[in-house]
Amino acid sequence: MEKIYFEDLPVGAVLETGARTLTREAIVGFAREWDPQPFHLDDAAAEASPYGALIASGWHTLLTAFTLALEARDWSQGSMGSPGMDEVRWLKPVYAGDTIRAVGHVLEARVSRSKPDRGFATMRYDIFNQKDERVAHYSGLHMLRLRPQAE
Amino acid sequence: MEKIYFEDLPVGAVLETGARTLTREAIVGFAREWDPQPFHLDDAAAEASPYGALIASGWHTLLTAFTLALEARDWSQGSMGSPGMDEVRWLKPVYAGDTIRAVGHVLEARVSRSKPDRGFATMRYDIFNQKDERVAHYSGLHMLRLRPQAE
Repeated sequence: MEKIYFEDLPVGAVLETGARTLTREAIVGFAREWDPQPFHLDDAAAEASPYGALIASGWHTLLTAFTLALEARDWSQGSMGSPGMDEVRWLKPVYAGDTIRAVGHVLEARVSRSKPDRGFATMRYDIFNQKDERVAHYSGLHMLRLRPQAE
Repeated sequence: MEKIYFEDLPVGAVLETGARTLTREAIVGFAREWDPQPFHLDDAAAEASPYGALIASGWHTLLTAFTLALEARDWSQGSMGSPGMDEVRWLKPVYAGDTIRAVGHVLEARVSRSKPDRGFATMRYDIFNQKDERVAHYSGLHMLRLRPQAE
C-alpha cells in the first residue's frame, strides 16, 4: 500500500473503506468498558428504550469507521494526528450484527501557514450500514506531512 | 446516587467528574485496537513525531472523559442516548501517566417539540490534566427523559 501524504488528499478526493460487522459480543464488550448504558448492554432494557433492541454505542460506530479509514490507506508516514472533529451525528441505530463501512470526502485542504512542512485536510466521513442507510457522519481534521522532496 | 432526568441539567448546571490516569499500558492497549498510529504505540516513533513522546489517542482521551461523566451521575433512567457532538478539539497531548478529569457545563436545554416526554441538553465538556491544563474539549448533545410525574 502506498504511503499517503498531504498531497494525496486534495479537495474532492474520496476514500472508501472496507466493511466490518459489529457483533453482539463486540457491542456489549465495548459498552462494558466505555459506555455502560442499559440499551448497549441488556436486551430487556434495550427493548424498553426508544431503540427497541440492543444497539452499539455511537462511540463504537465512530471508532469502527475511523479504524477502517486507517486500514484503507498507509498513513504511517504522513499522519501527524488531528486537531479535532466537528458535526458528529448519529442518525440511525446500529444493531447487533449490522455491517458498517465509511466513505470519506476531502472538503478542504490547506498547507499550514506557520509550519509549511504540513497541511490540514478536512474530511467528511459518512458511515453506512449493510442496507446502505447512512447511520452516522462526522468531519475529521487530519494533520498530514507534505511529501518529502526526496521522494 | 440520585437518578438524573432532563430537569436536573438546566442551563448553567455544572458536572465535575472524578479523575483517571492513562497508564502507558492502557494507552498502547487502546491504540492497538482502535488507533494504531506510531506515536500511540512506539516510543522511538513518538520521539520522532511532533509530540516528542508517547501520547494517548485523542479518542482515548474523549472516551475516558465520557466514561467519567457517566460515572459522576446515575444516568440509567434518564439517558436516551445522543444525537451527536460538536467542536471536538484536542489542544494538548496526553502523555503516559497523565491524569485527566472533565468539567461539563450545560449551555442549552430544551424540551423536544415533537416528543414532549424528553429534552435535549447541550453540554460543553472541558478536559484537564493533572496540571489543570486544558487538553481537550467537546460539546455533547444529551437526549434525556423528563422526570416521571409519579416521582
